[in-house]
Amino acid sequence: MGAMIELTVTTTAREVLVDITTLVRHALRDAGVRGDGVLHVFSPHTTAGITVNEGADPSVARDLVVALSGLVPRSGDYRHAEGNSDAHVKTSLVGTSAAVPLVGGAPRLGTWQSLYLAEFDGPRRRAVWLQATTDGVAT
Amino acid sequence: MGAMIELTVTTTAREVLVDITTLVRHALRDAGVRGDGVLHVFSPHTTAGITVNEGADPSVARDLVVALSGLVPRSGDYRHAEGNSDAHVKTSLVGTSAAVPLVGGAPRLGTWQSLYLAEFDGPRRRAVWLQATTDGVAT
Amino acid sequence: MGAMIELTVTTTAREVLVDITTLVRHALRDAGVRGDGVLHVFSPHTTAGITVNEGADPSVARDLVVALSGLVPRSGDYRHAEGNSDAHVKTSLVGTSAAVPLVGGAPRLGTWQSLYLAEFDGPRRRAVWLQATTDGVAT
Repeated sequence: MGAMIELTVTTTAREVLVDITTLVRHALRDAGVRGDGVLHVFSPHTTAGITVNEGADPSVARDLVVALSGLVPRSGDYRHAEGNSDAHVKTSLVGTSAAVPLVGGAPRLGTWQSLYLAEFDGPRRRAVWLQATTDGVAT
Repeated sequence: MGAMIELTVTTTAREVLVDITTLVRHALRDAGVRGDGVLHVFSPHTTAGITVNEGADPSVARDLVVALSGLVPRSGDYRHAEGNSDAHVKTSLVGTSAAVPLVGGAPRLGTWQSLYLAEFDGPRRRAVWLQATTDGVAT
Repeated sequence: MGAMIELTVTTTAREVLVDITTLVRHALRDAGVRGDGVLHVFSPHTTAGITVNEGADPSVARDLVVALSGLVPRSGDYRHAEGNSDAHVKTSLVGTSAAVPLVGGAPRLGTWQSLYLAEFDGPRRRAVWLQATTDGVAT
């Protein structure tokens, strides 16, 4: 098991899904990750999460952002003084991490799947952490 | 760590939770998985996820499907041309994978827990991927 | 990989987020967990989940509970006879497990992150299971 890999992602809107699949693939390759196992992708934030969804049609990411905004409006019965409670709620709904299979040191995604940083309180610079749990054997 | 195990699940409705606990147990046994660790169950799809919930009373799975349909209606402010944006949103809400403890090569679930494939755009043939992260020691 | 660690958490309300970060840190230390990898935190229940969210301002946990209650009301089109279908639905929305990086045997959380048991049908005694997947090397 190697050291944790730290990436930086810059988001450009308050609510947006950023496809990080290629970034993650390159980071694993550059770090020399090998073998089969599981890749964990973490958001160390509380107003941005990680989700897996379709990468082919950008409308899906847009629809997801809009649907979540409808479910959890920006104003409501909130007490958190920073005014971003909606972003905290959405982060727990999508989750702060995703796990995907790792085969030959690369994430094995489904045909239509992409890895997304789900930004709910941007624009900001965000960190993404990767940890590969593998047998370390080249395949 | 062994190779990834691939299963097939046939769903019979547009929206349905399919209990895959027994299928998963048998697949791990047939693959000779041993030891303690973590089992990851993956959906490689973008309109079907994986969730853990009660398996004793089938009404719980039915209530979950109905509640999600109320939260994320089939028609709405969607741009994705395939007309299944609700299924994509629900998949991100439940997630595309679940992790459960693995003890002696078998999933250690809570008393009332079952593993479910959460179908949101069926009926279809779906794949489920398993990856066991263990110490490989028989227990 | 060590044995699964079992913790007990007592909740004091029907719906409440209990910060278990310190409990988890102490349990890992007491169990002698070492090395880098991934920590999995599991709820073996179907009406209580695990989530990661802000720990600094308790209003965030309160807002999350209130928002989820608004999304999934206690009464609705439910058939499950126990009258706690809302709790089952919420559990699948937040998920029954969380994964966080493990560095030097301790969870590596983001600055504002805490680990929470998300109780949706308390008050009860709840179990929390931990499984550390590490290289076992002291760091």
